[in-house]
Amino acid sequence: MDSPSSPPVDPVVIDALKAALGPGGWTEDAFEIAPHLTEWRGRWTGHTPILLTPQTTEAVAAAVRICAEAGVAITPQGGNTGLVGGQIPFGEVLLSTKKLRRVRDVTPLDDAMTVEAGVTLLEAQQQAAAAGRYFPLSLAAEGTATIGGNISTNAGGTQVLRYGMMRDLVLGIEAVMPDGEIFHGLKRLRKDNTGYDLKQLLIGAEGTLGIITAATLKLFPIMRSRAVAIVGIDSPAASIELLERARAETGSGVEAFELMKRMGMEFVLKHIPDTREPLDTTPPWYVLIELADGAPGGAEAAMERVLEAAFEAGLISDAAIAQNDGQRAEFWRLREEHSAALKPEGGGWKHDVSVPISRIPDYIDEAGAAVEAFHPGARVSVFGHIGDGNLHYDILPPEGAEVAPFIARWKEGSAVVHSVVGRYHGSISAEHGLGRLKTEEARGYKTPLEIATMSAVRAAIDPKRIMNPKVLF
Amino acid sequence: MDSPSSPPVDPVVIDALKAALGPGGWTEDAFEIAPHLTEWRGRWTGHTPILLTPQTTEAVAAAVRICAEAGVAITPQGGNTGLVGGQIPFGEVLLSTKKLRRVRDVTPLDDAMTVEAGVTLLEAQQQAAAAGRYFPLSLAAEGTATIGGNISTNAGGTQVLRYGMMRDLVLGIEAVMPDGEIFHGLKRLRKDNTGYDLKQLLIGAEGTLGIITAATLKLFPIMRSRAVAIVGIDSPAASIELLERARAETGSGVEAFELMKRMGMEFVLKHIPDTREPLDTTPPWYVLIELADGAPGGAEAAMERVLEAAFEAGLISDAAIAQNDGQRAEFWRLREEHSAALKPEGGGWKHDVSVPISRIPDYIDEAGAAVEAFHPGARVSVFGHIGDGNLHYDILPPEGAEVAPFIARWKEGSAVVHSVVGRYHGSISAEHGLGRLKTEEARGYKTPLEIATMSAVRAAIDPKRIMNPKVLF
Repeated sequence: MDSPSSPPVDPVVIDALKAALGPGGWTEDAFEIAPHLTEWRGRWTGHTPILLTPQTTEAVAAAVRICAEAGVAITPQGGNTGLVGGQIPFGEVLLSTKKLRRVRDVTPLDDAMTVEAGVTLLEAQQQAAAAGRYFPLSLAAEGTATIGGNISTNAGGTQVLRYGMMRDLVLGIEAVMPDGEIFHGLKRLRKDNTGYDLKQLLIGAEGTLGIITAATLKLFPIMRSRAVAIVGIDSPAASIELLERARAETGSGVEAFELMKRMGMEFVLKHIPDTREPLDTTPPWYVLIELADGAPGGAEAAMERVLEAAFEAGLISDAAIAQNDGQRAEFWRLREEHSAALKPEGGGWKHDVSVPISRIPDYIDEAGAAVEAFHPGARVSVFGHIGDGNLHYDILPPEGAEVAPFIARWKEGSAVVHSVVGRYHGSISAEHGLGRLKTEEARGYKTPLEIATMSAVRAAIDPKRIMNPKVLF
Repeated sequence: MDSPSSPPVDPVVIDALKAALGPGGWTEDAFEIAPHLTEWRGRWTGHTPILLTPQTTEAVAAAVRICAEAGVAITPQGGNTGLVGGQIPFGEVLLSTKKLRRVRDVTPLDDAMTVEAGVTLLEAQQQAAAAGRYFPLSLAAEGTATIGGNISTNAGGTQVLRYGMMRDLVLGIEAVMPDGEIFHGLKRLRKDNTGYDLKQLLIGAEGTLGIITAATLKLFPIMRSRAVAIVGIDSPAASIELLERARAETGSGVEAFELMKRMGMEFVLKHIPDTREPLDTTPPWYVLIELADGAPGGAEAAMERVLEAAFEAGLISDAAIAQNDGQRAEFWRLREEHSAALKPEGGGWKHDVSVPISRIPDYIDEAGAAVEAFHPGARVSVFGHIGDGNLHYDILPPEGAEVAPFIARWKEGSAVVHSVVGRYHGSISAEHGLGRLKTEEARGYKTPLEIATMSAVRAAIDPKRIMNPKVLF
């Protein structure tokens, strides 16, 4: 995919940036820059006059000040794992936060930890664990994705049902604003009602309001028991009834609740090595449930109560409870490899949508019918975080059909899917953001008031529009 | 207390408002208006040319449009239970949301409920309960405080430890913006990453960015067991160790964790009828703990585990577990009457502060020493939501001292307390907001960047500054 290019950067500005950041703080080496220019699926390849790799917040501020004075645009980048092209420069100065690597402090008594933007999500989880705490954000790219990027995109993942999105996990933020000033908002407070909560603006702003350099994150107690099961179920409607029962039975104990269709399960079994049928039967739908509890044995007991009652009510047809860590990982792998297993089937039109949980069954029916009308025989893959109302809704070419002409209809096909989402008052980007990919389409789902208000806020904070200028409205 | 007055409102504007809202939508009757002009403790009495009581969002929009065109200022008011004067008009048009009373929908499968701004917090809790769900926000004024006011002030209360502040409980917002346009942001989605999250700006904005007319709130499962205990403890430091153990032992089961000092307990026992010593001993500090669990009997079992281990570790000296609902209410009453019990002791300098939880013991020591140095013999009352780092920190006159001259030193005394809070990177308004009372003082604890950014955002959204113009920066 391509994107309009920002104007060329004055060599005087480039020289000033080099002087300000010093050796190790920048590179023009094409070989070093290359991995930062290509989105990991190869969907975008951008270009930049220079890659900045500041090692301190002050160095970020110095770089932004120079760009701000000259009106030169900046694309901030974290781990470069985004799916909507928001981190790929097209002519802008590229500023990577990957060298902001310090863990500034971990204070278990405050259930808080302050890390710099370039710390990976996995490292953050490990730091928390080392302090006897749990940092719940978890997603497939966690070994590479960074905390700064996770905050800028308000990342979601598999633990949202219980712990919320990244927005819910941030106590404080340090950021360099578009004029190069440093916002010192690192706080370990749970309560602070002293004016607008400015960090909320920066969270999910996709780098358009400043560059996050560090954050204080919320930590949680480690659960003493954990149970994972895969169950067979007749329909999405039944899965929602099961979710309701599981929540009622456990209070807040449901950590993950993931829906899978038999078709997706078959793709995984066919294309991913070392996988096997989780159940003796082959039901039309599956749910992966994870429960956790503070008391030893609590999660296992709760899982048995939930499944027993669901069997008695005729709600589930089959179930397997993981008996050990290995089996737990095996069950999760069946869910996590769903995306990878689609590729050998020809890829497809991918969507990351959300609708109110109660509307999921109707949405699946109606969207399925709309897709069939638009492209008869197209195969609909549905899986995802049903406990959050978030579905990964992907359309594959009809069995045996040619892939290229199908992929060519991607934009039209997505419009069909998204228009159903719109009728259900859903979101066309539940967790991936808009980036460069979806901004134009999103205009159709936002009111003029929303776009005008966002634009006014953006202009107030970044009057020269130098921060990730092609991203968002 | 007094506040600078807004300019007189042109009678032509008043007539236009009357015509737009029609009979029942406004009043100039001094008797009807009076209760809306006085803050409930009698600390502020304001004045207004007219009280508007629109019954629909469209009527709110019509009124705001008229005011916006004429540049006339508006003070929005919910249940008039605020503690910092943000809801009291001084010459502005007063717009009460009390007649926006509809419960628009409750959808238990979505764990969501949409109510209009004038619904009281108590009614919202009751609506949730009727649908088999729990709405956790809870505070002393809940019978009168409204959802609109709770959101505008980002209310806290006793359930923050587990469920968060009001900000964490809002899925969507409908509001009338300062130009009279309606922001249609009522959503039942758990995930929606499509641009800035504008509702975050309105939450906690104290009515300065628009008037919230309705909100979609998050609901939670009802917990099947609940246990309340009061324990005796040697020091605030020991209470924090106990909190850590309780959280580790229960996962997320600690719903409330409230510290009380022996002095405050004595005031309650002395001044509040039908109260009695909760323990056989009289320890220097008390903690009220509430645990809840999804499994029947789970909370009681967890409480026993927590307290047994704490006794063995020598962390607590005495404990009583409530044996029934009546005893639970009795224990909570000892905590909730703390504020009321201070009054007969001469009232005092009141503060609503937060510091990082780990710093609470040092803060209490240092602030106590600073107060003693400033006003020898002054009595320090400390109680509050220690699990959130939030203390109600009140200074009473020395025993037997005259009250009036002591109260007269309130501003200086508060500056002493707040400067210690500042050194601990705390907040001078943890949950009550700034309103008219604390804005000037808060300037000392905010950076110029923060104030400039807030002002820029405010000017972008309310360029004529007509929404609650004397409130916040």
